[in-house]
Order: sequence, then C-alpha cells, then structure tokens
Amino acid sequence: MSATNTTENPTIEDTTTEDTATAISRYPIPDINSLPDDIVQRILDVQEKAKFIPNVFLVLAHRPNEFRAFFDYYDAIIYRKDSGLTPAEKEMMIVATSARNGCQYCVIAHGALLRIYSKQPLLADQIAINYLHAPISSRQKAMLAFALKLSRTPELIDESDYTKLKEFGLDDEDILDITSIVGLFGLSNRLAIVTNMQANTEFYTMGR
Amino acid sequence: MSATNTTENPTIEDTTTEDTATAISRYPIPDINSLPDDIVQRILDVQEKAKFIPNVFLVLAHRPNEFRAFFDYYDAIIYRKDSGLTPAEKEMMIVATSARNGCQYCVIAHGALLRIYSKQPLLADQIAINYLHAPISSRQKAMLAFALKLSRTPELIDESDYTKLKEFGLDDEDILDITSIVGLFGLSNRLAIVTNMQANTEFYTMGR
Amino acid sequence: MSATNTTENPTIEDTTTEDTATAISRYPIPDINSLPDDIVQRILDVQEKAKFIPNVFLVLAHRPNEFRAFFDYYDAIIYRKDSGLTPAEKEMMIVATSARNGCQYCVIAHGALLRIYSKQPLLADQIAINYLHAPISSRQKAMLAFALKLSRTPELIDESDYTKLKEFGLDDEDILDITSIVGLFGLSNRLAIVTNMQANTEFYTMGR
Amino acid sequence: MSATNTTENPTIEDTTTEDTATAISRYPIPDINSLPDDIVQRILDVQEKAKFIPNVFLVLAHRPNEFRAFFDYYDAIIYRKDSGLTPAEKEMMIVATSARNGCQYCVIAHGALLRIYSKQPLLADQIAINYLHAPISSRQKAMLAFALKLSRTPELIDESDYTKLKEFGLDDEDILDITSIVGLFGLSNRLAIVTNMQANTEFYTMGR
Amino acid sequence: MSATNTTENPTIEDTTTEDTATAISRYPIPDINSLPDDIVQRILDVQEKAKFIPNVFLVLAHRPNEFRAFFDYYDAIIYRKDSGLTPAEKEMMIVATSARNGCQYCVIAHGALLRIYSKQPLLADQIAINYLHAPISSRQKAMLAFALKLSRTPELIDESDYTKLKEFGLDDEDILDITSIVGLFGLSNRLAIVTNMQANTEFYTMGR
Amino acid sequence: MSATNTTENPTIEDTTTEDTATAISRYPIPDINSLPDDIVQRILDVQEKAKFIPNVFLVLAHRPNEFRAFFDYYDAIIYRKDSGLTPAEKEMMIVATSARNGCQYCVIAHGALLRIYSKQPLLADQIAINYLHAPISSRQKAMLAFALKLSRTPELIDESDYTKLKEFGLDDEDILDITSIVGLFGLSNRLAIVTNMQANTEFYTMGR
Repeated sequence: MSATNTTENPTIEDTTTEDTATAISRYPIPDINSLPDDIVQRILDVQEKAKFIPNVFLVLAHRPNEFRAFFDYYDAIIYRKDSGLTPAEKEMMIVATSARNGCQYCVIAHGALLRIYSKQPLLADQIAINYLHAPISSRQKAMLAFALKLSRTPELIDESDYTKLKEFGLDDEDILDITSIVGLFGLSNRLAIVTNMQANTEFYTMGR
Repeated sequence: MSATNTTENPTIEDTTTEDTATAISRYPIPDINSLPDDIVQRILDVQEKAKFIPNVFLVLAHRPNEFRAFFDYYDAIIYRKDSGLTPAEKEMMIVATSARNGCQYCVIAHGALLRIYSKQPLLADQIAINYLHAPISSRQKAMLAFALKLSRTPELIDESDYTKLKEFGLDDEDILDITSIVGLFGLSNRLAIVTNMQANTEFYTMGR
Repeated sequence: MSATNTTENPTIEDTTTEDTATAISRYPIPDINSLPDDIVQRILDVQEKAKFIPNVFLVLAHRPNEFRAFFDYYDAIIYRKDSGLTPAEKEMMIVATSARNGCQYCVIAHGALLRIYSKQPLLADQIAINYLHAPISSRQKAMLAFALKLSRTPELIDESDYTKLKEFGLDDEDILDITSIVGLFGLSNRLAIVTNMQANTEFYTMGR
Repeated sequence: MSATNTTENPTIEDTTTEDTATAISRYPIPDINSLPDDIVQRILDVQEKAKFIPNVFLVLAHRPNEFRAFFDYYDAIIYRKDSGLTPAEKEMMIVATSARNGCQYCVIAHGALLRIYSKQPLLADQIAINYLHAPISSRQKAMLAFALKLSRTPELIDESDYTKLKEFGLDDEDILDITSIVGLFGLSNRLAIVTNMQANTEFYTMGR
Repeated sequence: MSATNTTENPTIEDTTTEDTATAISRYPIPDINSLPDDIVQRILDVQEKAKFIPNVFLVLAHRPNEFRAFFDYYDAIIYRKDSGLTPAEKEMMIVATSARNGCQYCVIAHGALLRIYSKQPLLADQIAINYLHAPISSRQKAMLAFALKLSRTPELIDESDYTKLKEFGLDDEDILDITSIVGLFGLSNRLAIVTNMQANTEFYTMGR
Repeated sequence: MSATNTTENPTIEDTTTEDTATAISRYPIPDINSLPDDIVQRILDVQEKAKFIPNVFLVLAHRPNEFRAFFDYYDAIIYRKDSGLTPAEKEMMIVATSARNGCQYCVIAHGALLRIYSKQPLLADQIAINYLHAPISSRQKAMLAFALKLSRTPELIDESDYTKLKEFGLDDEDILDITSIVGLFGLSNRLAIVTNMQANTEFYTMGR
C-alpha cells in the first residue's frame, strides 16, 4: 500500500524566489507503517471507497487520539439515522460555512461531495460564493442563513432564529443536526487552516 | 442514583408574565436508566470526582454517539501528554473564546476550573471580560490573542501569527494544542447555545 | 482614615519575568489629605455606606473637577426620581454594555450591585456573558438590545428602535434614562480602561 | 428674552406626504421662565458669547440635574488648565468621533468651532469625512487614530496604543484628556441622537 | 486658458515639521497642452459651465482612456433619460455612500451639487453625517438604506431588499439606476482616495 | 446568429415548490436584432474569440450607453499597455475581491480566465476561498491584501499601504492599476448581484 499522496501546487512564475508550500500539511505526516492498526484500517477503508486517500486522514493521523475522536464525531453526525436533512443539505452547510471561514480543504473536498450528492455540477461553486444567488429552495436558504449566523456570530442566536426555521418545517432535531455540523466543521476548518492542509487534486474536478 | 439536576433561575419580578427557561436544556434530558452502560459509567465517574454532575453530561446524553465522540475528543485534547500548555492556560483560552462567543455554560464552568487551576480567584472574571487587562504574562496574552483571532476570524490567520507565538517560545505542537482547544470549544459553545444549556449553580462560586 | 486600598493580582507562575499591574490605576492616586474637602466627604460617605472605598473614587480623584462632574452625573441619572426603570434594570444595562466594551471595573462592580438589587446571585454573570440566555423578561431583553445597539452603533438608531421599546410599555422618559445610562457608563468604561482601573476584590464575591 | 429657536428643515418635495421633524428635539423644550436660575444664567451667558443659544442648552434643560452635570463636565474637560492639547486638537477629536457615531449636532456645532480655532475653513469637513486625508500633522493623526479606536472598540485598547502616542510626545495626562473628550462626547452623541437634537443653522456656515 | 488649479490646505501650526499634501493628486497632473483634443474639449466644457475646473478632470486626465470611460459612464448614468430618480436623490446617494467610504472629494463636490439641486443648504451635511436624521422622505430613506447596504455589503443583498424598495414605488429600473450610481461612485471613491484627490475650495461653500 | 444562451440551474429536489431563477438576469435581455450595430459587433467579436457569448454582454446590453462605457473602461484597464501587472495577477485580484463581495458571475468567469492565464488549474478556487493559503508569491499576497482592503474598507487606506506595496517593487502606476481594477470590478460585482447575472456553464470547467 502506498501512502504517498501529494498535491501539485507549482507557483506562478514570478521574479521573487521564495518557496511555496507543496507539502500537504505544516505538520509531519506519519509513516503509515507506524500508525495503530485501527487508524490504518480506517484509512484503507476510505481509500477503497474513494480510490484515493483524502489528505485529512493523513494530516490528522499526526495525533491518533484526536484522529479517532474527529472521525467518530464525523460519522456520528453525518451518518446519524433519521436525520431530516438530506446528504446534499449537510454538504451545502459545510461548504457555505467553510467558505466564510476561509478553509480551502473543506470547501474543495465537500464541494465535490455536494456536486455528487446534489447531481448539480454548478451548485458547490454557487454556494461557496453566495448562497443567496444559488438555485436552492427557501427552506435551504433558511438553513444556510442559520448555519452562517451560528458559525460566525453564535452570541446573536435567539429564539426568533428557531421560529424562522420551524416555519420551513425544520424541527428541533434538525436544528441540532445543523448545530453539530456547523460546530464540527468549524473545528475542522480551524485544524485545516492551521495545518495548512492541502486538498487532493482529485476533489477539484470530481462531479463537475 | 439520582439524575435530577436543576438550576434555579427564578426571574426578576416584573409586570410581564412570561415563562423563563428553568430547564437545563431546550432538548429532553434522557432518563439515566435508559442510557447505555458506558455513558452511565462516564457520568458516574465525573459525579464521583466533582460531587455533582455537570449539566453538559446530561444534556449531551440526548445523543449517545455524539456524547461519546465529544468526550473522547475532550479527553484527547485536555489530557494530551507532553503538552507545553499548563492546565490553567488551556482554561484561559476556553474562557476567553467562550465569552466572545456568548456561551454562558462554558464561561461559568471553565471559569471555575480556571480559578482552581490558577489558584487566582479573580482571574476567570478578568479574562472573560477583557484579557488585555488581566494579570497574566505576555506569553499568555499572545496565546489568547491568537486563540481569539482563530476563533472569530480564522480566515485571517497567516504565517505572521505563528511567528509571533514562536517569539514567546511556543512551538508547532503548542500551536496545534491551541487550535484543537479553540476548535473543540467552538463546537461546544454552539451546542450549549442552541440547547440553551444551563450551568450548574455550583460552578458560579467554585474556587472563589 | 486609611486610604490604602490595593488589589491583589499575583500573576500565574510563568517562565517570563515581567511585572504585571498591581496598582489600582496607571495614574497617581492622590494622597487623601491633599484632596478638597467636598471630595474627601464624598469618599467618606461612600466608605461608610459600602464599608470600603470603591477604587473608582480614588482613581478619579486624580482630577477633582472631573471627579465632581462624574459623580454628580452619576447621582442625577441613577437616583433620578420617577424613573420607570428599576435599580436592577439600570444595573443590567450597565453590566451588559460594559461587558461588550471590555471594562473589567464596571462589570465587576456593577455586577455586584446587580446581584444585590435583583437578589439573583447568578444574574450578573449571565448578563455579562449573553443576556439573550438570561432569565429576564422580554421587556428587559428589549431594553438590553436597545442599550447595546446604542452603545456600539449609535449611528444605526432610528425610529423603529423606539417603536419596539414602546411595545413593551417603555415611554420616552424611560428611553432617555436608558440613553443617559448607556452614555455615562460608556464614558466610565473608557476612563476605567485607560486608567487600567482595578476592581476592589470585595466586588467579586458580593451578593453571590 | 426670547427662547424661541427653530431650525428650518423643509423637506424636499416628494410625492409621499409624511411629516418630517422640524422641532429641535423629540423631547419637550422647557419654558425658559420655568427653569432654575442657575440654568437660565448659564443659557444667558452662552447667548451673550455666541449671539445665539446653541440648541444643546435648550434640549438638555429638559432635565436640570443632568444639564448641570453635563456642562460642568464639559467645562472641566475643555477648559482644563495645563492641557497639552490645543483647542483645535480637542475639536478635531470631537468632530472625528462624532462623525463616526453619526451625530449631526456634534459634527455641525463642533465643526464650526474647529474652523474657528484652526483658522482653516476646510478642515472640519475634511476631518469629518476622513482624517487620514486631512492636512494635519502625524501627531494629530496619531491622536485621532487613538480617539477613534477608543471610541469604537475600547475593548481593544492596550499598552501598544499608549506607546504609539508617546512616540509623538503625548504624555499620560494628554492621553487622559483624549479619553475624557472621547468619553464625554460619546455620551453627548448618544443624547443628541436619541433626542434627535437639531443643530442651529448658524453653525453650518460659521467660520467658512 | 489656465489649467492651474490649487487647493489651499495649510497645515495647522505644529511642532512636528513634516510636509503635508498640497498637490491636488499623488499622481502627475498632465500639461493641458499635451492632452488629446477630446479631453481638452471636455475640460473646457465643464469649465464654462462651472466657472472652474473640478479637480477630478485634471487628476483623471493622467490616463486618457480611463478618463474617457469614466466620464462616459458618468454621463450615461447621471443623465439617463426617463430615470425615476430626481437629480437631488442621485446626489443624496452619492454623498451618503461616499461619506461611508471616506472619500473627501466626492462628499465635498457632490455635497455642493446636492445643496444646489435640493435647494436645501443644510441637507448635504446632514446626509453625509447620518441620513437617518435628515429631513427626507421615507422613500428616500429606503433608497439610502439600500444604497449603503449595496455599497458596503453587496454579498448580503437579497430579494427582500427589492421588495422593500417596491413598497415605496421604486421599480426595477430605479433599482438599476441606484445600483449603477453606487457602483460607479464606489469606483470613483477608490480613485479619489488612492490619488489623494483634493476637492476644489469652491465646492466647500457652493450652495450654502 | 443565435443569441440564445441559457444556464441550466435545475433545483435540488425538495418538498417546497417554489420557482428558482433560470433566467440569466432579473432584467430583460434585449433581442439582439434590436441592438445598435456597435454593440452587436462587440458581441460578435467576443463570441468569435470565446466560442460563446459571456452572459455579461447580453445582460448589460439592456442599457446600451452603460454597456459601452463599461466595456470601454474594461478594455482601458485590462489591456493598458506597459502595465507592471501580469494578466494572471489582474485576474487574481478580480477573483479575490469578487469572492469577498459575493459575486458569482465574476468569480466563475474570471476564475476561468485565471486558470487559463496562470496555467494553474487549482489556483482560482484557492484564491476565491482564501488567498493566504494559495501558492503565490509574497508580492502577489501583498497585492491581494491591498486589493481586499481597498475593496472592503477604502476609508482605512493610508500611506503605510503604499509603502508596503513599494517594498515588493510595485510602483505608483501599478498601484493605480490595482485601484482601477478593484474599483471597476466592484461596480461589476454590484451590477451582477442586482441583475442576478448567471455565469455561463462553460466558465465553470474552462481551464481545469
């Protein structure tokens, strides 16, 4: 099994001669042979499913305990049974909040998932730039408005926000799903930003 | 074992006659007898240590999988061996970022921990209000400046931020600790805000 | 009479070795014997009432004319007869706006008064962190929303703001009371911040 | 003595037919004969000096105790002996911060004073719009930068701000003067905004 | 023909001895004899009409192609036939948005035009400082609210903004007029700021 | 010649049944046969070059005079001889500022141009999301920092901003190029937002 996984980011030709980041992380990527078995297994599983290893798995493996907790949390939220949100709706919120937080990895990787789940090849770019101009329903716009408010100014959330969501048929469990997604990907955004995590090139074109 | 745990929040006398929240969460608190054994055990453990059950355990038990992931993440970060940050420094960052995010539960509960770890009974209030006027070191002020910037405007983080931290002897692993703390408690803040999680009254006076 | 009044703020142990502020002000505190009689009398009066001298009296005595005008203004507003606001409501607004302005002295000192007047030991911390989650009436939330808007973005105040307040039975004189309180404590916040005025330790626990 | 003092503000012709404010305040202007003698005297004094009664005197007379405290404070700050700031510099700060706070009365009235004190007929408009493009010294720009920061985001003030001012020869007493001015006129701005205080027409052209 | 055109901006006396800008631009002003005929003609035309040459013509002549496009755009928008906006309303929006963008040239020059078109000598200052307190109609306040939102946070514009304007009888072509004005003067503001374009002294008093 | 040009934006399946925009503009698209010859010629020219008609040409043709001025301005800036900025650098600034302004059309269309000019298929997405994490030179990061500051907060631009750019070898004419680009595309962003201009599907994948 090959763990080599690099992202080609040659710089634009320029008279200045500084190095630019070509590594997938500012932190060391562990030798896959040195990793605990459960982590190796999780990486092998995602590789089999995706046909490549998303860099987030390699970057977070730098700290195995946090790796486990992160992906357990991810699975608990994204694959929660009985959720009233569609997979595409979850990805819309991840894309919109990650774009506002300036997180390249999350916008690129989850933008790919959004294209796939929604079967709309233009939607991820539209939502990343400005969901108010995206061809989505009013209910979805209300979800994104709440997600962005909760992400950027949680101190301003009040009862009237829940009332608005409920007018679109979203119930308290849906609101908790949105909250968990916004919260976990807010954590993910900050990890990706500080590690300077690079998105795999595959994600940029997947589903277009 | 009694799972009853209420917070007394009588309203100020007022001519208006509306109800005010007295529950510890906007969401149902599960009957402790119905919870999975591992979750019951974790709650019993914290109760033994703290002599009461912090409400976050009861509130998050509403969703067992997310409960497990949350506390595993918490333990992975807060109890990480070899961290270059002191327990008090971790609590300072939790208090400062939670205050900016408007999260009562986290400021009150972690303010108590900060008083205990720092043995400075005034420090939690001072940092919650304005860390720039708190009697802490320049290194700690730099940590808090970074934590608040990462929490509120992650999109603006750049290399110069790491450079400043390194001038105070903080290395890349310390920076990753700060990032994980800011990220996880950003998630925690949003969960506490949306559930309207109430802090146990014990926390308000602990360590004063 | 002893004018000595110090706040103990030992720093957390830290490898850096810088001094941290232990004085109650960045400015000289006048020898009480050198002060004009009326100022001495006002200080003696507050000491008799409070059993200690709140540091604001000692710090502002550095400039006697401004001291007199400040406390005359304070008395005119806080003790105005026929005010439609309760003492607790006035302190709520002082605490909420001072917290947003980052003023330790005002949040700590007026938080103590809020606990005393409201007889609710948790309320000051709750309002300092996020009044939207405090157990207060809708009328009080409307007052705090207006107070914070007027404090932080006075340029955005328009007729619709008064209309909202009037829906809760607040009249034009109440609105003027709120305005005077927000304005005077905005001045007070800035004086406390620039003098680095330290709150007396007594205030931290009073009324809890 | 005539207390009649009106500001002509006819509306632009428009198909809508709503009333527009022509009163000098949203609050009642007291009959000057009903006012306490000391307040009448202060109004007569300013009228003799200015040849008209600035509306702020009539508007604030609605509450005599607050009127007295306000003008005592004003005098204590503006006429403080030994101040290291020139009268024009004080007005610059009043104009710049009042413009940012959206206070018409203060910008118009103190803009007139700035023109007179500076003998530069263009300066008030230039500073009200953007002091960075005004023909003032670097020291004055540093004062205005500090005044605006203290006015709008007092929570961000730290030691580095004082250091910058001291590089321009401003000492701690100058900094306290700036603070008192910013604070008092912040109060004044909010009073003028909520009362919808109208500037006398004389101020608009004075000193041009 | 004389192209000399200077603005007197003597600095306030000050102990610091730095130069302050007295030129009308940070960029070279071309010799009028060296300019293409069509540009000279446009300058002669405006001079005949205004009795002086507004500095914007001399400053932008530094780049003839951009000069032509700018003034063609200006004419297309400002003199568009059948516009539902009055000349005074167009100037109100230019003044309000330019003030928020900190552009001295545009506020001073278009403030003069607003005084002339509205025949209200106080209106330009009132709108530059805070249109919410200006004696204008509700329809005009709605136009200015939209213009400022579009100018400062275009990403937040959504359908509800158009709905509000239509409630005041503004149609889609009016909305497009507002958009073009806000957009072109946003460009103009940035050109004036970066060139440090000085307003002619004539504009400061015109129409008062 | 066919002027039909539509963008497929089917909505995600959803229980709500509202229409979503499928037109390329909220405003009428003129019949190409009714347009003035010079405008038709400009459209034919771009079609020959691009093999399709970018929607901006059809949308802006609604107002011929503004169409002409817009594209003349565009040509004057983008094709200015002797510019010190490369075509890719110009597109970087357009993409970064348009993303912050929430303009889908400009990010998508100029993102395509950036991919083509830079020959870096990932660069447009990286810069749209967060230029601080893009593989570009320090000089280019300084350009983008200035462009974003000028775009979002022109009132804060001062001499220090030019100094920083000059440290990277950018001269005053380069700074004026940046200013014109930021200004014109700020106008373009607002036109595209208010017309709800849809990007042609071709742009989404071009150059990937």
